[in-house]
Amino acid sequence: MLVVHKYGGTSVGDLERIENVANRVAKVREAGNDIVVVVSAMSGETNKLVGFAEYFTATPAKKEMDMLLSSGERITAALLSIALQSKGYAAVAMTGRQAGIVTDDTHTYARIRSIDSSAMHTAINQGKVVVVAGFQGVNQDGSVTTLGRGGSDLSAVALAAALKADQCEIYSDVDGIYTTDPRIEPNAKKLDTVSYDEMLELSSLGAKVLQSRSVELAKKLNVKLYAKSSFSDNEGTLITKESNSMEEVLVSGIVLDKNQARVTLRGVSDRPGIAAEIFTMLANENINVDMIIQNMATDGLTNLGFTVPQSEHENAKKLMASFDHDIHGMDFDEHVCKVSVVGVGMKSHSGVAATAFTVLADSNINIQMISTSEIKVSMVIDEKYGELAIRTLHSAYELDTI
Amino acid sequence: MLVVHKYGGTSVGDLERIENVANRVAKVREAGNDIVVVVSAMSGETNKLVGFAEYFTATPAKKEMDMLLSSGERITAALLSIALQSKGYAAVAMTGRQAGIVTDDTHTYARIRSIDSSAMHTAINQGKVVVVAGFQGVNQDGSVTTLGRGGSDLSAVALAAALKADQCEIYSDVDGIYTTDPRIEPNAKKLDTVSYDEMLELSSLGAKVLQSRSVELAKKLNVKLYAKSSFSDNEGTLITKESNSMEEVLVSGIVLDKNQARVTLRGVSDRPGIAAEIFTMLANENINVDMIIQNMATDGLTNLGFTVPQSEHENAKKLMASFDHDIHGMDFDEHVCKVSVVGVGMKSHSGVAATAFTVLADSNINIQMISTSEIKVSMVIDEKYGELAIRTLHSAYELDTI
Repeated sequence: MLVVHKYGGTSVGDLERIENVANRVAKVREAGNDIVVVVSAMSGETNKLVGFAEYFTATPAKKEMDMLLSSGERITAALLSIALQSKGYAAVAMTGRQAGIVTDDTHTYARIRSIDSSAMHTAINQGKVVVVAGFQGVNQDGSVTTLGRGGSDLSAVALAAALKADQCEIYSDVDGIYTTDPRIEPNAKKLDTVSYDEMLELSSLGAKVLQSRSVELAKKLNVKLYAKSSFSDNEGTLITKESNSMEEVLVSGIVLDKNQARVTLRGVSDRPGIAAEIFTMLANENINVDMIIQNMATDGLTNLGFTVPQSEHENAKKLMASFDHDIHGMDFDEHVCKVSVVGVGMKSHSGVAATAFTVLADSNINIQMISTSEIKVSMVIDEKYGELAIRTLHSAYELDTI
Repeated sequence: MLVVHKYGGTSVGDLERIENVANRVAKVREAGNDIVVVVSAMSGETNKLVGFAEYFTATPAKKEMDMLLSSGERITAALLSIALQSKGYAAVAMTGRQAGIVTDDTHTYARIRSIDSSAMHTAINQGKVVVVAGFQGVNQDGSVTTLGRGGSDLSAVALAAALKADQCEIYSDVDGIYTTDPRIEPNAKKLDTVSYDEMLELSSLGAKVLQSRSVELAKKLNVKLYAKSSFSDNEGTLITKESNSMEEVLVSGIVLDKNQARVTLRGVSDRPGIAAEIFTMLANENINVDMIIQNMATDGLTNLGFTVPQSEHENAKKLMASFDHDIHGMDFDEHVCKVSVVGVGMKSHSGVAATAFTVLADSNINIQMISTSEIKVSMVIDEKYGELAIRTLHSAYELDTI
């Protein structure tokens, strides 16, 4: 079996932890498997380098930042290879370029264009562990590029696909994906399996565990993905495509997003183009809109609601104030949050949304906005009820007993 | 004018010092010159990374060490480029590979094979300061290689030659080459000019200032080399080929080497091959022999003397004990030192050596061994007279009045 492991910053945070990773990799070899290991920078290293650059300017050139920041992963890759060799395992460290990762020209947020896996295959066939510096590639001019925050996850998934690896295991200090945030609901349970789509909807639960772009790529390339902890031998969570057995589970997780502010435009003229006008205006100011809800018009007027990040609330308020035509009034609330119920089982089962509305009503929690997708129900409620809503929903869907 | 500057670890030791270097480079641009800057790792960084590797093993793989250690220079290059850009100067950071430096395969001690300076020329023609990560290149397989300790000096000289730069300035925290170690002789004077050959013989005086390999390369490629301080505006020392005016100066400097132990073999049979046998034996044990002196034989017997580093003294002693044929006796002394008088003027002036012998005799300093080259007289004396000999010779050649 050929596996790809990826170890995050905390997992390689100091020399002792790098040695721990070497021991884990050694076990994979002892079990007769081939392995490619992708590593992040030692925790704190990337922030330290960013701080160095910011000593000189708040807006350092992105090409230079890529050369600067790609160093951290190279250091870890070299050290892990040395650690493996010191234990008697053949190993070779490769930069993104040496691993054959070619990206586009978008410095600090490059997209992988192609991977030439021949150098890795040669090393694997020589019985070597291949240790790859994550987060980086090289553009067609030969300049180093980086893949954005969390980019080592993306490296790992892309390499796993290019190598046709049997599975890709992403290691962090969290042992998998939970039904909700255990700090809010101590009865949160670790999920054994979750679908790619659910994982994307649960992204805020897994933000520390798995980068969303890497989940999207895994879905696209059908890479069998595990989220595991490098500090335990727990099974972790398998992220994979939907299977029939998954549908037996109605709901996989409950997510709380407190970084929300609500904007409601009342009495909006129901004419073509008005929504486009509003959201183009917001986009031009780089205000990231999350939920958008518009009901059917009555009497030619409708209400249009949307949410923005709390940090953009004041900007959105100012911007909308300049939009003084075709609406009757506006209403802003920065003390809201969004709770979401996620599960592929919703596709084939009715009543999932109804349960949510019922239990929140039973707790006297007023739902201000509702938005649903095939596998998600999201509700905007008063911020102060966020945690209560999470616990109530978690219990209602019996997630503490799975 | 096109100049190459190289800034050592102390000169880029922290962010403030990198900013100071950016200001120096800016002045060169303001004066209308083009410039390529080669940088070392921030001081302490390389040792830190070596320490990391040694946590795992005393003998890390050299290929991995090269990936590890080359990171330090990349970080400095990116930061200096960012610092220059923040001051409004166009700049681009390049790794050794991007600067076109191709080396052989000898990891951790690679030799430069070729430099393709086209990328640098393109950037220079675009009005950019080119900042190159020193100490590194890439072999023909595309693996990172490093050039050995002090290798950034070598990068700078090689780049200056490839670019046909007008001069190459090596910056450290010392403002040039002195007639002797100022800690021993406070009257030591900074030399304005010194020849490549003298510099090589004075290498222990300039060890912190200029790597010997880079001086050899500068001589071979006829690169006009300056040793300067990044902390002052002093003129520094020009290292160049010999000129007629140089011959007016008899002696350029006096060097003390305390890391010497003497071995004398008495009554050695004067037959072909015996010296070869002894020094092959020493070489096989990696014992580095410095001076070797053998006189003409009398009665078929000769005395053979040589010096080794003090750390190798015990090893040499053991090894020679096994050499019990063809000699009458042995004599060891680890409490010796070597004083050397260096100057191209010796070539055309007689009496330089005689002066040395006379003034040391006047001070009752016994000379145990003598060895001379075209531009150097070296003498082995009792260790405790080392500093006195330096001061005596410095004064005898009137070096405190140049």
